[in-house]
Amino acid sequence: MRFTRAAIHTSKEAPKDADSANARLLTQGGFIHRELAGVYTYLSLGKRVLKKIEQIVREEMCSVDSVEIGMPALTPIENWIQSGRDQVDIAYRPSEKTILGWSHEEIVTPLAREYISSWKDLPLSLFQIQTKFRNEARAKAGVLRGREFLMKDAYSFHATQEDLDQYYQQMLQAYLRVYARCGLKAYAIEASGGVFTQKISHEFSVITKVGEDVVIFEEVKGKLKNPQNAEIATGIPPQAIFSPSAKLEKRTVKRPNSITETAKIFGLQEYEILKTVVFALPKGKEVELVGISLRGDLEVNLSKVMAYFQNDRVRPASGEELINAGLVQGFISPIRNTKIPFYADESVKEMTNCNTGANEPDQDYFQANAERDATFTDWSDFVLVKEGFTSKQTGNPLKSEKCIEAGNIFDLGTKYSDVFNIRFTDKDGTAKTPVMGCYGIGVSRLMGTIVEAHHDEKGILWPKSVAPYQVVIIPLGKSESLEFATSLKKAQELEQELEKSGIEALLDDREESAGKKFADADLIGIPLRIVVSPRTLEKNAVEWKERANAEAEEVEIEKVAARIKNFFLPK
Amino acid sequence: MRFTRAAIHTSKEAPKDADSANARLLTQGGFIHRELAGVYTYLSLGKRVLKKIEQIVREEMCSVDSVEIGMPALTPIENWIQSGRDQVDIAYRPSEKTILGWSHEEIVTPLAREYISSWKDLPLSLFQIQTKFRNEARAKAGVLRGREFLMKDAYSFHATQEDLDQYYQQMLQAYLRVYARCGLKAYAIEASGGVFTQKISHEFSVITKVGEDVVIFEEVKGKLKNPQNAEIATGIPPQAIFSPSAKLEKRTVKRPNSITETAKIFGLQEYEILKTVVFALPKGKEVELVGISLRGDLEVNLSKVMAYFQNDRVRPASGEELINAGLVQGFISPIRNTKIPFYADESVKEMTNCNTGANEPDQDYFQANAERDATFTDWSDFVLVKEGFTSKQTGNPLKSEKCIEAGNIFDLGTKYSDVFNIRFTDKDGTAKTPVMGCYGIGVSRLMGTIVEAHHDEKGILWPKSVAPYQVVIIPLGKSESLEFATSLKKAQELEQELEKSGIEALLDDREESAGKKFADADLIGIPLRIVVSPRTLEKNAVEWKERANAEAEEVEIEKVAARIKNFFLPK
Repeated sequence: MRFTRAAIHTSKEAPKDADSANARLLTQGGFIHRELAGVYTYLSLGKRVLKKIEQIVREEMCSVDSVEIGMPALTPIENWIQSGRDQVDIAYRPSEKTILGWSHEEIVTPLAREYISSWKDLPLSLFQIQTKFRNEARAKAGVLRGREFLMKDAYSFHATQEDLDQYYQQMLQAYLRVYARCGLKAYAIEASGGVFTQKISHEFSVITKVGEDVVIFEEVKGKLKNPQNAEIATGIPPQAIFSPSAKLEKRTVKRPNSITETAKIFGLQEYEILKTVVFALPKGKEVELVGISLRGDLEVNLSKVMAYFQNDRVRPASGEELINAGLVQGFISPIRNTKIPFYADESVKEMTNCNTGANEPDQDYFQANAERDATFTDWSDFVLVKEGFTSKQTGNPLKSEKCIEAGNIFDLGTKYSDVFNIRFTDKDGTAKTPVMGCYGIGVSRLMGTIVEAHHDEKGILWPKSVAPYQVVIIPLGKSESLEFATSLKKAQELEQELEKSGIEALLDDREESAGKKFADADLIGIPLRIVVSPRTLEKNAVEWKERANAEAEEVEIEKVAARIKNFFLPK
Repeated sequence: MRFTRAAIHTSKEAPKDADSANARLLTQGGFIHRELAGVYTYLSLGKRVLKKIEQIVREEMCSVDSVEIGMPALTPIENWIQSGRDQVDIAYRPSEKTILGWSHEEIVTPLAREYISSWKDLPLSLFQIQTKFRNEARAKAGVLRGREFLMKDAYSFHATQEDLDQYYQQMLQAYLRVYARCGLKAYAIEASGGVFTQKISHEFSVITKVGEDVVIFEEVKGKLKNPQNAEIATGIPPQAIFSPSAKLEKRTVKRPNSITETAKIFGLQEYEILKTVVFALPKGKEVELVGISLRGDLEVNLSKVMAYFQNDRVRPASGEELINAGLVQGFISPIRNTKIPFYADESVKEMTNCNTGANEPDQDYFQANAERDATFTDWSDFVLVKEGFTSKQTGNPLKSEKCIEAGNIFDLGTKYSDVFNIRFTDKDGTAKTPVMGCYGIGVSRLMGTIVEAHHDEKGILWPKSVAPYQVVIIPLGKSESLEFATSLKKAQELEQELEKSGIEALLDDREESAGKKFADADLIGIPLRIVVSPRTLEKNAVEWKERANAEAEEVEIEKVAARIKNFFLPK
């Protein structure tokens, strides 16, 4: 393909509103064009990449016997009323009777009902690669979180939980193959559930600098293992040494409401301070307050508090709520305090000879022994695991990494089968409800994730499998000179030979400087660059330079096509 | 692919609400599933067909150097305000700030502006295959007119009208190749313009029984030639013989308001009656009435009236409007009548010795000579051409056919380039505005059109190029018998051999009767059926039956794979 016919439009200037590497590089490289916040046109290069990712996803879905269909974006509101999801904020409603599908359980489940009447009709797995619409309050990070995006969603139906469990594992492996083929190292991480289900689910996380998610890994000989979702990760806090407590002592103090500052003033380690955070538990219109106590150097993990109290509306209590409950902000402790119930993190157990508030203004307890002096309703693991912790299982150090969530899979149980009343006759003649799994990958999001994982200061480094073109061929020579004509002719011959072998070559036939052509090739991120210039042709050679490799080398012109084919399609 | 893994679900019952062959057969065959009026899920078979059509369209677009991109469905309302199309009825508005794209001039033109600054950047042609949303008041005819549908839309930009004209012709040929590859005979017909443009445009029409459009052809030796859009078609009416008029005579008559009945009562031919139809021409809040006179056996073509008066709001006048204008319904004529202006169709010219109303109740003129006795403001061609007419150019008989409009192409001139202010510097250094073309094919509509053109009482007959599977292999034998196991084994061997050669084979491994399997194969419309049964295996053969051919034959089992390959991929 000639560059001048490929409708490629690169830009030197980074877009002003780019908040991430993918937004910046995909825009500058001419892959995407922003139309609205979170809504992009995929330009010639972007569409090529998207189609390649789509095809990888499609092939892996077919490899687990999922069958491709195409559901519409316009969906009937009755179905959402039936499942109780008609009032979800992110749903666009183009008319009174329709919702633009932001997920498709409400369509695929009634559809599957028509297929399923006997155990012989199971398992059934359907997938689609389709445009989803979500009215995100804050679309951001380029194609990572958009209002309109391309998604692969699959739904499977099974006669037994065992069959679903087995298929779920197959799907998990298919997902890992998708990421590997897209040049990404993804970790399958058991997730805490969320709005979809309380049953098992996995997120697939890719380590990048801009990830919204945090994943805790064990570090073993420089390698990352056993990833845990930070929301549910467990670990042993950094070691703390306590001296034995004498009798609990109450003193008048002048100190700020800051663990770090207080530790300095009293010459203590932060871990020697017993910290208590008060949370509000909304229940209907009522709000109950609870205190969570933990070591001063640690933090509370809100997700663990939500899980413990089975309440996803838990939030830190407000100053007003503290005052109304008779609590003194900055001096709250579970010692001799019955105003609200207190719960202790496991880290509190060993705390002796520590400092904490005395529930009165400017009054602290010293020489506290938390287990001895405080009254706790219960003990549990409430701690936010961070770098510096060690594994409970192996004692290995834990490391925290920012990740992009690049897909997820869910065991839905009979949630939607029940709502839409699917029943089948089992082998023994009884009527049963099939169990369901669902499996999502954001295809356009994957494109952004690849850019986040593979770029440098010059531009993108596409993995071979998804690069918009595999080779860029750059003929050089002074414009309109015989030399340039010769370079162009040799470059064209090479392009045609490669195209015949199914290698996608981009011939940069523009009348631009070598510098501009090299810069664009780097920005666009084509894996291999071949330069045909008067200087190399003198030696009957071309210049070979891989995008991922700083070194260039010369290759004999007769041998280059074979070497390129072997580079992309090794036998 | 095994039938039992292909998620195919056929139905004996026709859907109750099917208003067309495509709606009925695509639903029964398990290609589509209705979710809302005009909104369908494409099921496993349907998605396969759709992808094949999509690929044919894509290849032909690439063949004219159009570059694929992907524009979003969510589009910013400002762009539509700028072009003045923000209030169009068919637009869905999912939010205050967005319109779901029902066409993409408003997105592609501002986008192209960023690409185009010099004559060197032209021509530029971009296409996409993308989901369109149109809030059709009456979605109907299955996938022929939907609210959500898959469309290929292309847009081209040119430095000169000559360049656009040349490209327009290339695109027209590419369109004809698309239809031919989809097994359709399409006619490119110059259209009357419509809302898009007053410049040249073409519709591509496929003759079917259910078409919404009417196309007038010349019939030459049994072949259809020179198609004309019925809205603008010209022709010579059937011959009429008049005797000379004597003096105009006014008589009191008792007759109904019906040309046919009146002709009978007076012993006249219908063409001997001068008919006048009154139309209302709304202009702002005012309405002007005009009479159009023509031969009694002919009909007025409303489109021609609209074009003549340059007014697309023209409609027949209401009874109240006639009374208010002092006209006597059933007795209106242009003779001695100055209440409204009258216009004559060319067919009126030769009318002598004819009968017509005398503008008073129960009063007719006899012995009228229209040209002599009536006063016409102007003469023009207002007639609706029908079967029975002959060609003005060749005198050949004209034939009327119902057609489906399967695509259209438009010369947009500088309409959108002006609105979105695209300018480029031409070779001579002056700033100019590029001219634009746009080119649409409904991809899902094409699927429905193919079914309308290729079906019989048993089901669909897919052309080889777009069939969901090319061959269906049906092993027969009593369920769970050794015989069936042998048939199945042979069938599997054949399936695997074909798959290796890139032939898509569907192996009907269901435990169903031969009758059910044959009926489904016919309904689904797979071009070739191979039956492997104990009876044929005895003769070391299989049965070969083409869907389009009633006759079956036996083929040696060793030779069948080669023959199938040759049937689909002839050398």
